[in-house]
Amino acid sequence: MRTAFYISDGTAITSEVFGHALLSLFPVEFNHITIPFVETAEQAEKVNDKIAKKFKETGERPLVFYTIVNLDVREIISNSVGINYNFLDQFVAPLEKILGIPAKPEKHRTHSIHEKTYDIRIEAVNYALANDDGANLDNYGEADIILVGVSRSGKTPTSLYLALQYGIKAANYPFTEEDMGDMLRLPARLRHFKSKLFGLTIAPERLHQIRSERRANSRYASMRQCRMELREVENLYRRESIPFLNSTKFSVEEISAKILAETGLQRKKY
Amino acid sequence: MRTAFYISDGTAITSEVFGHALLSLFPVEFNHITIPFVETAEQAEKVNDKIAKKFKETGERPLVFYTIVNLDVREIISNSVGINYNFLDQFVAPLEKILGIPAKPEKHRTHSIHEKTYDIRIEAVNYALANDDGANLDNYGEADIILVGVSRSGKTPTSLYLALQYGIKAANYPFTEEDMGDMLRLPARLRHFKSKLFGLTIAPERLHQIRSERRANSRYASMRQCRMELREVENLYRRESIPFLNSTKFSVEEISAKILAETGLQRKKY
Repeated sequence: MRTAFYISDGTAITSEVFGHALLSLFPVEFNHITIPFVETAEQAEKVNDKIAKKFKETGERPLVFYTIVNLDVREIISNSVGINYNFLDQFVAPLEKILGIPAKPEKHRTHSIHEKTYDIRIEAVNYALANDDGANLDNYGEADIILVGVSRSGKTPTSLYLALQYGIKAANYPFTEEDMGDMLRLPARLRHFKSKLFGLTIAPERLHQIRSERRANSRYASMRQCRMELREVENLYRRESIPFLNSTKFSVEEISAKILAETGLQRKKY
Repeated sequence: MRTAFYISDGTAITSEVFGHALLSLFPVEFNHITIPFVETAEQAEKVNDKIAKKFKETGERPLVFYTIVNLDVREIISNSVGINYNFLDQFVAPLEKILGIPAKPEKHRTHSIHEKTYDIRIEAVNYALANDDGANLDNYGEADIILVGVSRSGKTPTSLYLALQYGIKAANYPFTEEDMGDMLRLPARLRHFKSKLFGLTIAPERLHQIRSERRANSRYASMRQCRMELREVENLYRRESIPFLNSTKFSVEEISAKILAETGLQRKKY
């Protein structure tokens, strides 16, 4: 199996995302190795030794994806025995021409605490935790969005992702049997913030499966109960014109991107 | 201000990360617009209209970063009036030659629920929530890592990031005054899992500031208390040889990358 290295004097997240996207186009497996925070010439030489060792072991030149601000470190890695992808570099000169200004690389400008919106993101994470699962109905005024849906339809991971990645304050509220009675009605508390509501739904089969992993053979996990709850919430979304999406086939990344695209909600971080 | 568009028939996360990394090299601000899930020719034409409109409004050709698997959609976007960066494309042919196999692009291969490790990540998020803040000491056997430190030293956001991004099950345990007494000793429960412990510490000034936002003028937030607690935990880490890092200047992304690099912990997702 060929090895792919991801190297940076920062977190190496950018190298990973780029390399992963490129390699995902090929129907083979790779052995992934990330080496972040390579900040000195000495560390860079050691990285090159690792690349050389892997080449010797496998007989295949490793792929090396890197973004490095420090010039000395970059120079060393660019001379590794791997197949080197300094993938940002070739875009810099043309972009300098277009923008009419020289690039001014600085370390840790992405994925760092120095990003202007860093504190906003951490505050949003704390908000999501404090307002998870209907735990706290007093702070909905602060919410950027309130995710609603039945238990285990994907509200909590989505709230956390929106907070961590985008600095969006997402509360979430689970509709329970108590809310349902004869027919699910919108709780008064939520009605007050109706413009912030976004509904999630999910296929009954998938919900049954997820709930069964949690509480096998319970009424809570039964197909009958899952179907009933989902029918009620979907009827509510339609009756009250609450925008919603079916999360069955989507990851938290996809659900979050769809919510942003559909609601026009402004993210705090790019 | 020049506009940067991020376009994809998936989440557009890859385009965003690449574009953001490139633009962060330049000391100017950009207006960012993401348009994910552009999956039909009709939608692509509408995107091109938006790009053209922005050009007309600003007099500056927008930058357009895109990765698109669907051929028709890609063809249309590549003819937008913007400055188009189909940044993966030029790497594909050379890589096909190196690997000796043709690329086989499939939609939604990254950031999608179809990734093999998706369920592991969601399980890890649920684990992090259930084992946050010392809430549950029974499941430490399942933990990949247990973050320890005083209240507000960064344990919770780091646990969630490790779970969401890497599928790592991270519990966290806050040392409290009860644990301290005369001198902070390692609680018996934690000693049993000592090999999994990783400590966080933080500058007293920063801790004082964070705690003051939460409970101003409390003993909890006082400089004296912050200094005392941090001295105790740092002494403990050294005495017990628990690896630790100072989170003061680092983002959750950086803390997580450093923990992975230092501990050699295997991530479940790349």
